Amino acid sequence: MPYMKRSLLLTRNTPERVELDTTIGPWPYPQRIEYYDDFYYINRETFRFKIVNNSQLFNCDILLNAISRYNDLIFNNFTLRNNLRLKELHSLEIYVKGGCEQWPRLDMDESYTLDLLQKNLLSSRSVWGALRGLETFSQLIDKNFIINKTYIEDFPRFAHRGLLVDTARHYMPMSILLRNLDAMAYNKLNVFHWHIVDDNSFPFVSKLFPQLSDKGAYNKHTHVYTPENVKTILEYARLRGIRVIVEFDTPGHTLAWGKGIKDLVLDCSSVSKQYSGLSLKGSGVLQVTKESTYDFLKKFFGEIAETFPDEYIHIGGDEVASECWTNNGQENLYQLYMKRFANIIKELRKKYIVWQEVFEEDLYMHPETIVQVWKSWTQPEEVTRMITERGFRVISSASWYLDMISYKKDWIDYYKYDPHTFYGNQTQKNLVIGGEACVWSEYIDETNFLSRTWPRASAVAERLWSSKHVADSEKASPRFDRFRCLMKERGIPAHPINGPGFCEHFVLPISDKWFSEKQQHNGVVFVYASKATLTSFLVVCGLLMILLLLVLRPTIKQLVRK
Amino acid sequence: MPYMKRSLLLTRNTPERVELDTTIGPWPYPQRIEYYDDFYYINRETFRFKIVNNSQLFNCDILLNAISRYNDLIFNNFTLRNNLRLKELHSLEIYVKGGCEQWPRLDMDESYTLDLLQKNLLSSRSVWGALRGLETFSQLIDKNFIINKTYIEDFPRFAHRGLLVDTARHYMPMSILLRNLDAMAYNKLNVFHWHIVDDNSFPFVSKLFPQLSDKGAYNKHTHVYTPENVKTILEYARLRGIRVIVEFDTPGHTLAWGKGIKDLVLDCSSVSKQYSGLSLKGSGVLQVTKESTYDFLKKFFGEIAETFPDEYIHIGGDEVASECWTNNGQENLYQLYMKRFANIIKELRKKYIVWQEVFEEDLYMHPETIVQVWKSWTQPEEVTRMITERGFRVISSASWYLDMISYKKDWIDYYKYDPHTFYGNQTQKNLVIGGEACVWSEYIDETNFLSRTWPRASAVAERLWSSKHVADSEKASPRFDRFRCLMKERGIPAHPINGPGFCEHFVLPISDKWFSEKQQHNGVVFVYASKATLTSFLVVCGLLMILLLLVLRPTIKQLVRK
Repeated sequence: MPYMKRSLLLTRNTPERVELDTTIGPWPYPQRIEYYDDFYYINRETFRFKIVNNSQLFNCDILLNAISRYNDLIFNNFTLRNNLRLKELHSLEIYVKGGCEQWPRLDMDESYTLDLLQKNLLSSRSVWGALRGLETFSQLIDKNFIINKTYIEDFPRFAHRGLLVDTARHYMPMSILLRNLDAMAYNKLNVFHWHIVDDNSFPFVSKLFPQLSDKGAYNKHTHVYTPENVKTILEYARLRGIRVIVEFDTPGHTLAWGKGIKDLVLDCSSVSKQYSGLSLKGSGVLQVTKESTYDFLKKFFGEIAETFPDEYIHIGGDEVASECWTNNGQENLYQLYMKRFANIIKELRKKYIVWQEVFEEDLYMHPETIVQVWKSWTQPEEVTRMITERGFRVISSASWYLDMISYKKDWIDYYKYDPHTFYGNQTQKNLVIGGEACVWSEYIDETNFLSRTWPRASAVAERLWSSKHVADSEKASPRFDRFRCLMKERGIPAHPINGPGFCEHFVLPISDKWFSEKQQHNGVVFVYASKATLTSFLVVCGLLMILLLLVLRPTIKQLVRK
Repeated sequence: MPYMKRSLLLTRNTPERVELDTTIGPWPYPQRIEYYDDFYYINRETFRFKIVNNSQLFNCDILLNAISRYNDLIFNNFTLRNNLRLKELHSLEIYVKGGCEQWPRLDMDESYTLDLLQKNLLSSRSVWGALRGLETFSQLIDKNFIINKTYIEDFPRFAHRGLLVDTARHYMPMSILLRNLDAMAYNKLNVFHWHIVDDNSFPFVSKLFPQLSDKGAYNKHTHVYTPENVKTILEYARLRGIRVIVEFDTPGHTLAWGKGIKDLVLDCSSVSKQYSGLSLKGSGVLQVTKESTYDFLKKFFGEIAETFPDEYIHIGGDEVASECWTNNGQENLYQLYMKRFANIIKELRKKYIVWQEVFEEDLYMHPETIVQVWKSWTQPEEVTRMITERGFRVISSASWYLDMISYKKDWIDYYKYDPHTFYGNQTQKNLVIGGEACVWSEYIDETNFLSRTWPRASAVAERLWSSKHVADSEKASPRFDRFRCLMKERGIPAHPINGPGFCEHFVLPISDKWFSEKQQHNGVVFVYASKATLTSFLVVCGLLMILLLLVLRPTIKQLVRK
């Protein structure tokens, strides 16, 4: 039964329903995709992923972990019988040409080919491509475990596809950060820009300077990221092909640093300068004229460089209340600082990213510096033109401040913005290495972070991965609706973006675990456990008792005989 | 040790922390509150609520259920020792003058007096006042289980303090609606306005006309409210002193009704009228010229009147695409319909609420009709003046559309709006019986409903309960921050509203229960169970095995003797 009418499948739909259609296509959309009107059924019991032709990958943690994840994601739903009597897809072979790379990086190769026409083969040059291909494969399968014969050649348009998370205005619990990394992987985003500290709090626990978080965190016991936590984040991200670029913003935004380290920071709370329309009240700047500041920075960033394996560190440089310094009668201290600090970073063999102010104020920048453009109100296109004209690379963010929410389909604005929208030659365009959606957390904490971010960040994700010609938001809408439901099914509380409708599954937005943990303080443990847990508990208990009875069987027999 | 410096308590605070202060005050703020600089410690082991002096209340379900709830809410945290050697508050006596009323209603008495000076007595004229007083009492207790000697006299400024939830644009699971009722009770809101059906879906399962939801719900199995569900909602609300006013909006917004009942609805999808700046594409209107329509309405609303005990039904009447009718060459059909329909409602011995259009279009209204003002862009104050001039009562909603979100402290706008802001004499002002925060769900489902609604609806709650002189948003801010953290602790994902900061406890915004239930489909039950659950499981299993061994002990002994 090689050819089926699509309508046959669609009769399963209820009215108005956004159903998984086998040809609606993955998100972000691949560079090249061909569907054939022929289908496979995937049988959970027999289907296998196979790593082929490269024995050095048989034990590759990144690949094995990914296969296990996608096996779960694909088969976590109920299995339907193969009622339609389709051919079965028995396996997907995975062929990676390269070795088991350990850490994702700016120039990693994420391209892949997925051929379900003849060979049922996912092939890529690196493990990163295999990860992206597995995500695509998982999205091709519909609710009935049916997949079209499909041929895909795919690669990202931009190398740097990021999401900024601010854990300083409000602290985000580990579980939120980890789930967010899952969501990023579903969207093929590859940079977690961790804006980890700021004026308001310093949750990073330094081994060398524990007093920074002891004094600077909101709560040194509960609102911190321990070295163990950071390792967990790094590993979780690594296995998903996501770089963690940490930002320790200096010399401004450092008020919280000063709580732990004496004489490090000038408190500019009283300087009520209006900067870019924002009040800088409560901001701090480093004491850039003190030698002790540089001694501290060398040691502290030494630890940071060692802790975070990525080649790049984000060093901030934005919104500096420099009048705090000029009060001291000095001049161009901002320049002095950036020069000395850039040198410290260079000695640590790291490259760095800065916010656009460093370029605007014409401060020192190492030739390999990447500039992040963020000011939406000062002609970001013109700034991008100027930065690339001087040969620096750019990360585009000005149009993608997701914390700024409004009541409309704002994803369309994010979707339509193209980072190449500026006057410049091809060399300049090539210097735009990508972009980042930014989620600043002034009004966001764990209660609304995930639902504020998703699926709006997905619009940015497609813009950065897919061809620039995939830009019709109306055409993208049903595919986006489907993907948002898929994310929900996978546990991300991605909110509705296109008006009334529904998804098949619910995600309850509050942790029952949290509730039951509270209950446990009262000694009531099982009251809030699910029925299934209780049942399993009784079954296992029962089995153990039967086992015990079996062991004691001779004794009991003897007793009976008597 | 009768007098303590407050600073002694405050030394427990970490910097910048919004800590429970014993005199920061409850939300919404009481009409009269007096603090004395003397403290009690509340000991979880010994503290008791006591119902006194009214034996007919000893078995009153509303009161007993409330005492059990507040006992949990107050003591669900760890218990600290009485390190400060304060006097203990051993009990709170509860005296209710009236009987055990069964259903909350518009004219219920919610006033109460809480006297912790001498008598440790919560007294009220009705059980509803006792509920409100228990909420206030629970909010007076700080993290260290310390409470000031306090005297409170309290009553609501407005009788109707509501929250509209739209379950038709997107379906809300039961768990969300129930948790939302909890949040409403914490805020002393007393009307759940259930906008249950609309053009987009008909999730209400009618016993008489099951085809309405069979055909009109997004999914007739999963996206519906069964009679059992509705009963659960009603009972949950009743126990919290919350009225459920259901809205079955007619004659417009009825497209989904037409899917189940033939010839009931005209589909106006093709009539692309712009109405109030909104496109009415896809809207439906009832076939008001057919006699069969009124036969249906009599039967259907008969069931509704029986199902929902409140004296009032919301009958809608807004945004009617009347040109769908005029195409038939008839005139003033809207008037004809409202007259006949009002009569049907009257025969069912119910009163009704309508949206402001019914007044604006000068249609028939029974003298006891309540008009809900919602259009923010057509001078709601002037409309309110006109409605009250004609002697009708008003519910104010125009300033409180919470689904419209923006990036700022928008709660301040909600907070500052006073429903008495219109020209009119005292009689007119008295006709404003209250207001409602509205959460329309075009872009909202279970992923973001609670965090979108809370704590912004709390600003409305205080405006409607507290004195009109409690209107300084700056002064209210720290109290509001504290209350938002309290809501979070109680399981409501209330988001940050005043910029950077933190609460002591986290609420994880995704149900782990949902996750673990999914995992169970794979036969993996305990992988995602919490450590505590696993430990308890092992301990209980161990105990059972020890028990079994004890039972078999004689047998084993015999064996050993041999």
